[in-house]
Amino acid sequence: MTVTAPAGFVAAGLHCGIKASGAPDLSLVATADGAPVAAAGVFTSNKMTAAPVITTRRHLAHTKGRAAAVILNSGNANAANGAQGLDDAQAMCRGVADALGCDPHEVLVCSTGLIGIPMPIATIVDGIPGLVAARSATGGDAAAEAIRTTDTFAKQVLVTGPGFTVGGMAKGAAMLAPNMATMLAVLTTDAAVDPDDLTAILQRAVSASFNVISTDGCTSTNDTVLLLASGVAGPPADPHAFAAAVTEACTKLALMMVADAEGATKSVRIDVVGAASDDEAARGARKVADSNLCKCSWYGEDPYWGRIASELGSAGIGFEQERISVSYGGVTVAAGGVAVAHDDEAVRAHMAQRDLHIVADLGLGPGTATIFTNDLTHAYVDENRGTS
Amino acid sequence: MTVTAPAGFVAAGLHCGIKASGAPDLSLVATADGAPVAAAGVFTSNKMTAAPVITTRRHLAHTKGRAAAVILNSGNANAANGAQGLDDAQAMCRGVADALGCDPHEVLVCSTGLIGIPMPIATIVDGIPGLVAARSATGGDAAAEAIRTTDTFAKQVLVTGPGFTVGGMAKGAAMLAPNMATMLAVLTTDAAVDPDDLTAILQRAVSASFNVISTDGCTSTNDTVLLLASGVAGPPADPHAFAAAVTEACTKLALMMVADAEGATKSVRIDVVGAASDDEAARGARKVADSNLCKCSWYGEDPYWGRIASELGSAGIGFEQERISVSYGGVTVAAGGVAVAHDDEAVRAHMAQRDLHIVADLGLGPGTATIFTNDLTHAYVDENRGTS
Repeated sequence: MTVTAPAGFVAAGLHCGIKASGAPDLSLVATADGAPVAAAGVFTSNKMTAAPVITTRRHLAHTKGRAAAVILNSGNANAANGAQGLDDAQAMCRGVADALGCDPHEVLVCSTGLIGIPMPIATIVDGIPGLVAARSATGGDAAAEAIRTTDTFAKQVLVTGPGFTVGGMAKGAAMLAPNMATMLAVLTTDAAVDPDDLTAILQRAVSASFNVISTDGCTSTNDTVLLLASGVAGPPADPHAFAAAVTEACTKLALMMVADAEGATKSVRIDVVGAASDDEAARGARKVADSNLCKCSWYGEDPYWGRIASELGSAGIGFEQERISVSYGGVTVAAGGVAVAHDDEAVRAHMAQRDLHIVADLGLGPGTATIFTNDLTHAYVDENRGTS
Repeated sequence: MTVTAPAGFVAAGLHCGIKASGAPDLSLVATADGAPVAAAGVFTSNKMTAAPVITTRRHLAHTKGRAAAVILNSGNANAANGAQGLDDAQAMCRGVADALGCDPHEVLVCSTGLIGIPMPIATIVDGIPGLVAARSATGGDAAAEAIRTTDTFAKQVLVTGPGFTVGGMAKGAAMLAPNMATMLAVLTTDAAVDPDDLTAILQRAVSASFNVISTDGCTSTNDTVLLLASGVAGPPADPHAFAAAVTEACTKLALMMVADAEGATKSVRIDVVGAASDDEAARGARKVADSNLCKCSWYGEDPYWGRIASELGSAGIGFEQERISVSYGGVTVAAGGVAVAHDDEAVRAHMAQRDLHIVADLGLGPGTATIFTNDLTHAYVDENRGTS
């Protein structure tokens, strides 16, 4: 159930001294022999791009999609640190390369934590030899522990297919753990897939998973998803099954993020159907998911469909108020733009659950979209009111 | 300091029975003689348009911009009520017209409160004769009281210019009072201005006032701003001064809304300067204003400039991270994309104030924009978690 489950990978995690709490804060995923393998990455679109993202992108471009290791730290995002930040990200890669015996370009780097705080780079570099020495084929759990920030549990996944295995680890999504400002995921597989195909597969998987969760609409400076393929198991007999497995692994990690969102008491699935197009459905679903008014109503277990309709009506998409219908847990509470008689008790029971399912039908066309989100609570406000 | 300050207007407010609390819930602004005068309106862009908005738009179109009265109720938004909602809005106008002796098309209507709940229309219609009978030249305060929902104080304004007076009243902005789902404002003036000019003046005033405040990015089903001109004082000698006075009145009401936003502890002015264009500056400022991460940091009095930069970097506007600088209360905390040494104590003192002022300079061009917003607090979550 870890990044070391697929053959050909080792990992480690430990406390090097970034976090004052003494919690693990430095993590490594590497190939078993220290040789580079096919690798792909998908990154934040935020132009306030963190140094590790810039560095990892450059390294993948330089090697044409090959990597021997990923080093990750929690407790500091190394974002908004200027030229020093780039030097520090480079120093982390060099430290791993020296210990592993590979080229620094073959090392990728991810950071998560506060923005705009200089990295304690000497502490990190001092910790790297011990981290690399600790790597093992059973180190996946420790690696996943060491990337946690406000996550209440380590997020790991394992998906098996015909002749291949996909493993992964992740930490809280952008606005799930916004104080820590980042969603990171590293996936591994024993399948042999060339870098270009791997990149295409990962991009599609991210679009269908991490990009359909939203908790507060913010985009981090550091968001990164990486996939390394050791090739030990040879090319997948069924390429479609492999792509599906990568998507499944990403989806499972994404849903764990929503379930563990900062301070959340509800996981909410929103389906918008009957839109003029899939794109309009997605924009409408995201407008509802990012609405503080809707989020507060879910926290209060209140099936206030008027807010759903109001958000869809102001989403800039095709909308006719006399066609909108809304259901909670399969019970239709509004149709044709007005409230309809329904089983109040069934709706109340649904709203009391942890997992809510809302369907809004625009009644206009064939467009559909699904997004996963969560509620807005006191605890979210508390986790984000200060950096200390 | 009320809608009855300009000559030619009367007003009233009372409890008719919509609110269980017994608080005032029915409000009237009318011309002193019951005859129609020039009138203009600006309305929500939400396609989930409430019945009173549809009705008021139709009436202004029918009369080519003339009205004798505005009736307003709080406690029910009359939104998402289908054909019945339109009938009810019409019944309110007819009730006032019957009592005043004018045409129903000369009556405008505004509602604020919960969405999707049928109006207690019999209660309202029964209350109208008493409301109209209670109208007086000193009734402005009572009218302003009766449109309050979660507002903690009645919002009124008076601006005088050379030979004219502009008065106004308002209730909390969309997401300031989102449970109640609406921002309403009624302005009056004794100036003589024709309906087309009045509409143009009001549209520009709204763009520069109500449209530059944002508390949670939501757009209500009922937002309405109306301006009636009695003409008693004759045409304004200085038309520019009149337009400026309308903008000033709207701005003062808008700032009262921000100061009284649900659960807010901070009023925040955000200036984005150095953008490629004014439009890009405005989009960036709004992205910051609507960010829950930024809002929580203001609540926590935390000058976390990295979040400001991160929001601007993901706003879809021109942005180069090595050019961004950010200041709090005039103290620059970041320049060239990195933190800079500054007077910590001065920043701490500024963040402890009720009114915060943040300037983000993109360093790219001449574009500037200002937006006013507030923080995100426990009290906001509480006010919006349920409808009961």
